[in-house]
Parts: sequence; structure tokens; C-alpha cells
Amino acid sequence: MNISNKTALVVSAHSADFVWRAGGAIAKHVKEGWKVKIVCLSFGERGESAKLWRQPNMELGKVKEVRKAEAQQAADILGGEVEFWDIGDYPMRVNDEIMFRMVDLYRTLQPSFVLSHSVKDPYNFDHPLAMHLTLEARVTAQAEGHNPGQKILGAPPVFAFEPHQTEQCEWQPNTFLDITDVWDIKRRAIECMQGQEHLWHYYTRVAQQRGVQAKRNIGITATRNIEYAEGFMRLTPSVVESL
Amino acid sequence: MNISNKTALVVSAHSADFVWRAGGAIAKHVKEGWKVKIVCLSFGERGESAKLWRQPNMELGKVKEVRKAEAQQAADILGGEVEFWDIGDYPMRVNDEIMFRMVDLYRTLQPSFVLSHSVKDPYNFDHPLAMHLTLEARVTAQAEGHNPGQKILGAPPVFAFEPHQTEQCEWQPNTFLDITDVWDIKRRAIECMQGQEHLWHYYTRVAQQRGVQAKRNIGITATRNIEYAEGFMRLTPSVVESL
Amino acid sequence: MNISNKTALVVSAHSADFVWRAGGAIAKHVKEGWKVKIVCLSFGERGESAKLWRQPNMELGKVKEVRKAEAQQAADILGGEVEFWDIGDYPMRVNDEIMFRMVDLYRTLQPSFVLSHSVKDPYNFDHPLAMHLTLEARVTAQAEGHNPGQKILGAPPVFAFEPHQTEQCEWQPNTFLDITDVWDIKRRAIECMQGQEHLWHYYTRVAQQRGVQAKRNIGITATRNIEYAEGFMRLTPSVVESL
Amino acid sequence: MNISNKTALVVSAHSADFVWRAGGAIAKHVKEGWKVKIVCLSFGERGESAKLWRQPNMELGKVKEVRKAEAQQAADILGGEVEFWDIGDYPMRVNDEIMFRMVDLYRTLQPSFVLSHSVKDPYNFDHPLAMHLTLEARVTAQAEGHNPGQKILGAPPVFAFEPHQTEQCEWQPNTFLDITDVWDIKRRAIECMQGQEHLWHYYTRVAQQRGVQAKRNIGITATRNIEYAEGFMRLTPSVVESL
Amino acid sequence: MNISNKTALVVSAHSADFVWRAGGAIAKHVKEGWKVKIVCLSFGERGESAKLWRQPNMELGKVKEVRKAEAQQAADILGGEVEFWDIGDYPMRVNDEIMFRMVDLYRTLQPSFVLSHSVKDPYNFDHPLAMHLTLEARVTAQAEGHNPGQKILGAPPVFAFEPHQTEQCEWQPNTFLDITDVWDIKRRAIECMQGQEHLWHYYTRVAQQRGVQAKRNIGITATRNIEYAEGFMRLTPSVVESL
Amino acid sequence: MNISNKTALVVSAHSADFVWRAGGAIAKHVKEGWKVKIVCLSFGERGESAKLWRQPNMELGKVKEVRKAEAQQAADILGGEVEFWDIGDYPMRVNDEIMFRMVDLYRTLQPSFVLSHSVKDPYNFDHPLAMHLTLEARVTAQAEGHNPGQKILGAPPVFAFEPHQTEQCEWQPNTFLDITDVWDIKRRAIECMQGQEHLWHYYTRVAQQRGVQAKRNIGITATRNIEYAEGFMRLTPSVVESL
Repeated sequence: MNISNKTALVVSAHSADFVWRAGGAIAKHVKEGWKVKIVCLSFGERGESAKLWRQPNMELGKVKEVRKAEAQQAADILGGEVEFWDIGDYPMRVNDEIMFRMVDLYRTLQPSFVLSHSVKDPYNFDHPLAMHLTLEARVTAQAEGHNPGQKILGAPPVFAFEPHQTEQCEWQPNTFLDITDVWDIKRRAIECMQGQEHLWHYYTRVAQQRGVQAKRNIGITATRNIEYAEGFMRLTPSVVESL
Repeated sequence: MNISNKTALVVSAHSADFVWRAGGAIAKHVKEGWKVKIVCLSFGERGESAKLWRQPNMELGKVKEVRKAEAQQAADILGGEVEFWDIGDYPMRVNDEIMFRMVDLYRTLQPSFVLSHSVKDPYNFDHPLAMHLTLEARVTAQAEGHNPGQKILGAPPVFAFEPHQTEQCEWQPNTFLDITDVWDIKRRAIECMQGQEHLWHYYTRVAQQRGVQAKRNIGITATRNIEYAEGFMRLTPSVVESL
Repeated sequence: MNISNKTALVVSAHSADFVWRAGGAIAKHVKEGWKVKIVCLSFGERGESAKLWRQPNMELGKVKEVRKAEAQQAADILGGEVEFWDIGDYPMRVNDEIMFRMVDLYRTLQPSFVLSHSVKDPYNFDHPLAMHLTLEARVTAQAEGHNPGQKILGAPPVFAFEPHQTEQCEWQPNTFLDITDVWDIKRRAIECMQGQEHLWHYYTRVAQQRGVQAKRNIGITATRNIEYAEGFMRLTPSVVESL
Repeated sequence: MNISNKTALVVSAHSADFVWRAGGAIAKHVKEGWKVKIVCLSFGERGESAKLWRQPNMELGKVKEVRKAEAQQAADILGGEVEFWDIGDYPMRVNDEIMFRMVDLYRTLQPSFVLSHSVKDPYNFDHPLAMHLTLEARVTAQAEGHNPGQKILGAPPVFAFEPHQTEQCEWQPNTFLDITDVWDIKRRAIECMQGQEHLWHYYTRVAQQRGVQAKRNIGITATRNIEYAEGFMRLTPSVVESL
Repeated sequence: MNISNKTALVVSAHSADFVWRAGGAIAKHVKEGWKVKIVCLSFGERGESAKLWRQPNMELGKVKEVRKAEAQQAADILGGEVEFWDIGDYPMRVNDEIMFRMVDLYRTLQPSFVLSHSVKDPYNFDHPLAMHLTLEARVTAQAEGHNPGQKILGAPPVFAFEPHQTEQCEWQPNTFLDITDVWDIKRRAIECMQGQEHLWHYYTRVAQQRGVQAKRNIGITATRNIEYAEGFMRLTPSVVESL
Repeated sequence: MNISNKTALVVSAHSADFVWRAGGAIAKHVKEGWKVKIVCLSFGERGESAKLWRQPNMELGKVKEVRKAEAQQAADILGGEVEFWDIGDYPMRVNDEIMFRMVDLYRTLQPSFVLSHSVKDPYNFDHPLAMHLTLEARVTAQAEGHNPGQKILGAPPVFAFEPHQTEQCEWQPNTFLDITDVWDIKRRAIECMQGQEHLWHYYTRVAQQRGVQAKRNIGITATRNIEYAEGFMRLTPSVVESL
């Protein structure tokens, strides 16, 4: 509960992505005393709010409002600090202003690790763009000549969280995080997403499948039980003191 | 110095491979109290003993003897326990007897991790074969129906150590081990390989380059200094409690 | 001849691409009663009109005019409906206005399948851009929040038609369309391309080679004869009722 | 219900694989009047019968017997015809006698499609070997000079069914089979596997996830409901008359 | 006509492969005074002699005889020296005796380059096996400890010649050989293959397509004309004195 | 010393890249009488000038000045003609004006080969962008309709020079250039980079490692000695008259 000087950054293209894909990681690190900052680049207001749009007299501002409230509630449950950048979705576009805003955030936050989307996703162009932004801003934040005098960024590892159809996205989970002890928190955060109830079940099953796989990867002889897990694809090498 | 119940397994196709490619990892874990078992499948007597063969009146038995002595000396310096299986090289052939011998070793040793060669190597067919043996024996050692009653193997992670021409082997270092504090030990082990002095320099430079890269991957703001490192390609996912 | 409610969309970077690469598919589906819409993003006026440019007193407007006439004639022979968007070539640039125009077309047309270029082509940057536009517009057309009230797009499968140097483009034909019965139509359309006569022979041979391969993939015991075929790389999974 | 002259071949490394991975495909085609032949190369007696081995006084013959009974029962429920070749597992070994036996089966059965394991599987060496056998025997069965006078094999498409950890196996589902209407049959077949109850839930969830993905790939505007699906990776190109 | 001390090695799985796939390379180097040795591992008697097997009263010995005569005639026309090793096809099997025979040939011949099949071919298991033999024997021939006293092999570059369905074989032509000036010789050699007349046309078109591509890769401004070419995939790096 | 009509183009993202990565190639071709044009897109003023920024009272103009002087001095030593385009770094941005400037340079220079960065580099977004510019401008310079009347570009081969962490960049050296005889020149050019002394040693070791590998790829029986080499990844096929 008290490694409180550590921080992490989660970059979510749409306002629900961080819940489905990284809710366990957020809750777990918060529980350990970390500060976890979540950036929602958009509300998913155009492309991931189908149920809202089917309501009568719906319009964009209202969709955003509802989506924001849901995401805020989920973030509160997980214990993360969320920011809404409202840059639009389907299609998402990132300009240099947004990029430098992310650089500033890196510099201020000095995260120990970073989470965002898969590098490829043929079903969703906003997702890889969010990761591209995450990576390019990270490199820029390392540049001594950017805002000289500021503390530059180190080299926090970057992980891609799980996309919807993993195999089509060339995404491979090389890291499983055991989230069994925070599963109930993640599930409660998931249930904030009123408009996407069909995904509650989908991502609950994802967590169960990854749990089985994580268990298999520690060996059936291990005494540790793993019921729920999140899979991540670590993009950057790890540097270790023992194997 | 006293996690002495932990063990590791290193499978080396030829008798010098474990020195160039994993000498630092061996020395480092031995220093931490691990038992590290090294299997030399062959002496590299036909394919990696050019200098010896250019001596007058050389013959196979004598080459093996010299190579064995060098490897034994290197293993002693590193602190590993070496076994010589003498199954031949260039070409290496593995039959089921060898495979089951490796299964037995896994079951007896119960290693916490395993090191062997890259999965591909168009320049060297013995190397991928050694890894194939390592992987297939690992899976067989996990089978409850193999020698029922024995303690089955868990799921030790498998790492591919660095091949000679990495890019041609589709080998990518996703894990860097800092070996700065055992470099002098590795270097002394390297110098046991009297017949391959040109490789002393080559693998010293490899360690320096990997050191620079490891340093870069922890960020230039990190205070830890890394001068020498070994790169490994972890083949199996890791299961973690924090990212 | 009368499934006339079905439609298809073909997105062609330059005005002749749809002929060489998808002429058989267009003619075949038109023959079955489909409406096939062809979008020529450019005339290939700068990069694929070498012969015209070698004529005296040639200028851009005239090149476009000739190219347009040839493409219109070819489309008429194939039975497709062609639109010329004239957005320029070598280099092609796509802005959001173009993207949304394509979204509108998807929504209006509601195509059952979509054809465009290979995802990669190191010899031609306009081609992958055309496919990128095709894919991004498709996803946007599926978004409920884009022009709410319009009928959203389903999930038409996307196929990449054959590029010039397939192996360099990481393009693999996973679908062969038998075009034997419409080959004469495709050939007549090909012959409209007065400025690229060397390609008539090239793409006739392509059709013959793909015919031989298609035949091989149904087995030499099959009684169906295939003399000409087009190869396509299906990018999206198929959902079937039997294998 | 009466395309009864069509046949399919399923090659299963261990006696339960065909149930988890292709049970829906088998039931679905049987329902349509197909004859589906299943070859169980082994009983999974050594590597996939952990629960049995933990019973007192267990020995190999008895494990095989129990596993055979379960698989027979499952095949009966699915409606497939099963053969047990008993060639051993963990490690599986295939000699030419086995290969030619498979060639004979191809020639006799003349299947319209073939199902087996993924081409790669770092967690399981028996699985890729089963697919290798399936592919090599298929090519040999096409050779005119093998047992001249017999009817040679055509070119039945080959599909890899779903492995346990798809992303590690470089397996990608390019074909989804809707198994909603035979799910209850598959589930009953699954429940025959008394020793692997934990996998009942795992593969039920797999079917649900693939169902959601299949639905997404036909588009949310489609009226067809898909609750359960099986994913397959088609290895050979399809030859079609329309796209 | 007189660099007569240079040699090349071509390893052909079946007796016609060297003609379709490397006939131009053989003729071209022979014309320049090279000695080109061709090894036909089999006659393709079982898998590539369909037309012969359809003749009445055909049997294996006779098929081999006819195929041998055709291949000998083709080799004579090309100017290569052919050896027939008769190790069988569909399936081909290679034991150590064959491997060491190839090692001996490397040592005796000391080729400046080597040609064989693609490393992968899902349609033909004999082809990748021939390349595997070619590569493993090459490495063994470099081993000082193999038959000490013999002149060891250097590092001749290895090229994979063109398979039947290139894209399915992950084969990419990174090297085009202009065979325009020896095309008539290759075509005459091709016409020796009486049983595979359909392939005459196929591989003539292959040569024409590769000619067009080669021309494109030197640029349309180049004055050199290329009408026919062969594509090769160089597997080993080149070492050059200028780029 | 006098093939003086040949030219080459080197496109360097930052002002020191051409020295570390292509200094040997530049010196070698200059020595043979070539004209080698170097374009430095930026000075690396923000992202690769850490040491300068740590000096008191440093500001952007001064950093650029120092970096420019160093690069000019290095280019002079190597014998290349350098241009500084000063388009900014970390992040680099390329607009059409820059692209067409590069097209003009291609047309004027008519280079026989082109060098730039790797196509991918997850550690550095400026590098792949420089290569993208290099490739797109090359294709545009081939277009007859661009500035009609100018001499169009042929098809100069494109090589990617060595990135910092090769394996992470999917970069593979398929071409080694022996730079032993110009190594001292390259080393002197390297020593101009006062702010990056740690890289002097790094890239000296790179040259030594590539030298060993180049030697290995010509075979240990070759008499030619290679002490230093540069590795390149050729992206475009070669067209040859002999293998």
C-alpha cells in the first residue's frame, strides 16, 4: 500500500478501453500504492456507443456526457486518475499539439510503465494510432533538447493490452498479470459500461481464459492459484538481474 | 549466496557454446547460490575445432580430450556442473534415448529456468536441434504418464541465448541480463578456449554492445551502470504480480 | 442474371488498375446481375502514363482526358459503373473529405464485398494508400455515431487484388476466382488501355498462371476446367455454414 | 440431410482433441448427411490423462482403455466414425508405415476436406506432427505412381483447428463455422471427457468467444444470430465462382 | 568461355526440376565456361510422372528409365553434368549416407554457388527436404574434423530457385538472372520433358514475367533489354567491394 | 579513382547518422571516384545532442551550429558532399515541399544507389520516416508526368544501413561491404562527433563484428582479409548476369 512514489500511464483510445483491457492492471497497482493515470483520448462517442445512438433524440454532446460519466465511475472504482482529452473517434486524428501534450504528461508523471493498444488492428484504426502516439511521445519525452531544463523521461517499458480479435492483430501475450485478487473490482468497473453489456460477458471470459493460460505457464505443479488474468504484449526488452 | 535450492539447466550443442553465450548467466546465478547444470551434447570436435585439426597427427579422440578439458576448466571457473554427453556434431543426431535422458535430467534437476540455442540458425544445424531437444524433453517431462510416480516437471521458462549472426537466425533479445559484476569470471572462462582465440574478442565485444543496449533500455536517467550484458530471447510468457 | 440487389465496390488507385487486377471479378459479378461500383481515385496521370507523356505538346489535362476515356470504355465493357475522383497520383494524398466521401459511398452502396490494392507495395505508395482509405472508410461507415439515422454498413469482406510484383508486397492469393467464362470480356477491356500495351501480355499471362494454379488447387481429378483466374488475398475471416 | 456421398477426415493427435477443437464441425456435417472419419493417433495416455494417473494402481493399459471409451462415446454422440491408431504420445513418433496407412485412408475415403492441428505449437510437439503427417500423406495420396490403379486423391482443403494458446502457435482463424445449432451435441460430447472437466468450461468459453467474433465478422446488421462458433485456419487457397 | 575453373552445384529433388527452375542459370554459366554439376535426387517417378502412369502396362522401372532419358537429354542440351541418385520420391527420405555423399560432392566440386529448392513448400515435401540436405551437407563440408586432410569447403552462396506457387512458399525473388541470350537453349531443354507439356507453357510464361520484372528493377531508362529471366532467392548474405 | 560519372545518395535523419552507419560506404566509393551526396534532414539537435544541452546557457541555434560544424568536418574527411535541410527532429515531420525537393535531387543527381535508415525502428520515429521519404521520392522521381521534360530516374537499388538495435528493427544485413581499407578514414570522421564519444567505441565494435561476419560469409578458406565491414539490408532485388 505504500510504494506511493511509483506511477503508471494508461492511454485508452476510447473511454471504455482501459476498463476491458487494463482494469485489472490498474486496480492491482493502485492497491499496491501506485498512482495510475489514465488518458481517454476520446469517448468512443461515434464508434462504440451504438446502444446510446439507438435511443430517441440522441445527439453527440449527450453521448459524450453519458460515456464520460460511465468512464469516470469505472476509473473511480479502479482507483485510477482519468483525464478526458476529447480528440474525436472513428476516425481519430492526432496533431502535434496532442503529441506534445502527451510529452508533457510523460515528463510530469515519469511513469514506471506504460499501457496502450496493439500496434496493429485491422478492425480499428483508432487503436494503433493511440499506441503510435504513446510511443512517439515517449521518444520525444526522452529528448534532451525538448524543453531543456525539464527532467527528461527514462525508458519505461511499454505494453500493448489485449485487442478484441488478438490473432488478426498480430498481438501475442508474452506477459500475464494475475488479477485474481482484484477481479471483483474490475468486474464492478466493467458493469459501469451500461451501453455495452454484451462485452461484460466477453471480457469476463477473456479474464478466465487468460487465467487458465497463466496457470499453465507457471506449471500445474505450482501451488499458486490463478483464476483471472490479463495478457499483455511487452514491446520493449526487459533488463534483469536474474533470469 | 543462499537461495541454494534453486537450479538452472543449460543445454549446449558444442562444448564451448555455454561459455560464449551463457557464461555470464551461469556465473551470476552460481554467485547467488544457484546450482547450474550444463549439458554439452558434443565437444564440437568435428565442426568447431579447426585449430586443433591443423596440428600434425591429430585424431578425433585427442580433439575431444582437449575440448573436454577446456570446457571442464571453463565450467569450473563459472561454477557450473558440466556433463558431456558426446553424441557427435556436424551433423548432430538425437535419438529417443538421448531425449529420455534429458527428460530424466529435467525431472531430477527441476530447474527454475532453461537456456539453449536459437530456434533457427541457417549457419548451424546442431544449434536448433539442441533447442528442439530441450523443448521436446521439457514437454515430455511434464507428462504425468511418463514414469508415473516421479515428480513431474513444472513449467520453467525457456530462453534462447545469443547465436553468432543474430539477424539471420530470427533471434531477438527481449531480455538483457546485466553481467557487469561477473564479467571478469566470464572472461577467464572464455580464455580457457585455447583453440578459438579470435572468438574471445568477438564475444567480449558482444558483451559490451549488449551492455550499451541494456543501459539504453533502462534509460539514460537510471543510475545503475551496465558495462557488460548477455541478451536472451525468452520463448515462453512470463506470469507476473506486477508490471 | 438476377440477384440484382447485390452490389460490390472496387477501389482503384489509378484508372487502369481495376482492369488488370479485378476486370474478371467485375465482369463475372455483373454477369450474375450484381451492380459493381468502381472508384478510380486518380487517372494515373503522372505515374502510369509514360507513353502519353512522350507525345509532343502533351499536358496534364490532356493526359487525364485520354486516361479517363480509356477507363470509361473499359468499365463499360466490363459492365461496371465507374466514378473518377481525380485526387492526384505519384504521390497520392487522401484528406478527410475524401475519406468521408468514401464513407458515404459505402453507406449508399452497401456492398457485399470490397476490392482494393495490397496492404504493402514498396514499388508504389499510392496502392497501399488506396487500401488504407478503403479499410478506414469501411470502419467509419460501421460507426453508429457517424451521420446517425443513416443505415450503417455491415461487415463486407475485403479482398486485396493482385499487385505487380506479388512477392515483394507480401501478398498471397488465398482465393482464386475462375474467370474463364468472362476472359474474353476482360481481354477486351484490357485492350482499351492503349498506352500500356506491354501490360496486355503481362496480365494475360498472369490470368493464365492463376488459372493453372486454381486448377491445381481443386485437384487434377476435378472435372471443371479453369483456363483463366484472378487471385485475391482475403483480409477478413469468412463465416460459413459448412467447411 | 442427404448429401451422403460427401466425406471429411479429422486427424486428432490425442483422443480428446477432436472433441474440443472440431466437435462442432463434425456434428454439423454429420447432421447434413456427411460421413466424418476421425483418426485418433494416440489416446493422449501419457500426456493428457493427468487425473487418471493420480488414481491408485493405475497403469498404461487401463489409461488407454478409459480414454478410448470416452472418445468412442464422444464420437458416437457427434456422429463421427472413429479409428484408434495407438501410436503413442509425448513424444509421438510417425514412421512410414503410419504415413502410408494415412495415404490409404485418404484414397479410400476421398474426403472433401481435412482437419488437423496447427502447424506450430511450442507447447505440444505431437500436435504439429499430426498436421505434418496429414499434409505429407495428402500429397502422397495425390501421386499417380503410388499404388497405380487406385483412384488418386484430389485436392481437399486443409484446415487447422484451434490450439490451446493460439497466439503462441501463430494460428489465426480465417474461417469461422457457426455451430450454434449443434452446440448442445458438442457440449454432450465434451462431457464424456471425465478426466478433463476443467477443459469443459475452457472450450465452452472458446466457443462463445468465437461466436461473438463470427457475429462481428458478418456485421452487426446481419440478422443471423451466432452464439457458438469454431475457428479454423484454412491452409490452402479456395477456388470460387463468386467472391 | 574460359573461366573454366569455376563450378556450380544444382540439387534437384525430381529429375525435371532443374530444367524448369534453373535451366537458364545452368546454360548461362556453362556458356561462360563453368562446369555445372546437377544432382537429381529422384526421377519424380511416383509424383511427377502422371502421364506415363496413365499408359497401359506401366511399371516403376520403366517410368524411371523414361524420366532419366528425358533429364539426361535436357542436361546435355544445357551443358550440365547430371548425376541420378535415385533415392525415391513422394515421399523422399534422406539418410546420413546420402548426406555424406553430398558432403563428398561439395568437397570434390568446390562450387562457387549452389542452387536448390525453396525452404518451404506446403504443396511438396520433397522440395524443402532437398534444400535441407543441400544446406546441412554444405555446413558439414565446412567442418575441419570431417575427413581431415581433405580440402574443406568455403562458403558458397546458396540460392533457392522458383517453386510452383511462390507466394504459398514464402519465396521471394531477391535476385533476377537475365537469361535472354540462353532462352532458346532452356526452351529446347524444356521440350525434352515429354510427359509434362502443360508445364512448357507455364514455365515459358514464368520466364517472360520474370523478364518484365527484371527489366523494371533495372529501370525503364536502362538500355539493356531483358526478355526472359529466372528469379532466385539468395539465402546467404553477399560480401561486396562496392554497393 | 576515375569512374567519376557515378553518384550515390545518402539520406541521414540526423547529422551524425551518415557517419556511424555509412561512413565506410561513403569513403569507399569516393575513393573509387564516385560523387556521394549526403542529405542531413536535421542536425539531431533536440534528440541526439544530450551532451551539448548539458552545457550552461545552451540554446537551439547554438546546438545546431555545433552539430553542423561536426557533420561538415566528417563529410569532408569522408569526401562526401553534404547538404543540411534543417527540417527538425524528435519529432521529424516531412511535408510535400520536402518530398519534392528530394525528387528534384534524385533527378539532378541520378544516383546509382541510395542509402537510408531501416524501414522500422521502435526506438526512433525519425529514422523510418527518413527512409519513407527516400522511397516515396524515388518512386515519384520515376514518374514521367512529374516535371515532364526532365530526365526521369531509373531504378537505383535502395539499402537500409544499420540501426542501433538491429533485432528490434527487423533489420537483417544481406549485404556486407568490406571497409577495411577505408577504416582509418571512417574512424577519423567518427571522431568529429565530439558530443557522442561513447558511440565512437560502439560503432568501432560494430565495424569489427560485421568484419568477422563478412569474413565468415566468404568462407574461412578465402584469402581475402576483412577486418572492418558495414552491413546493409538491400530492399530491392538485384538483376545480374551471373550468380
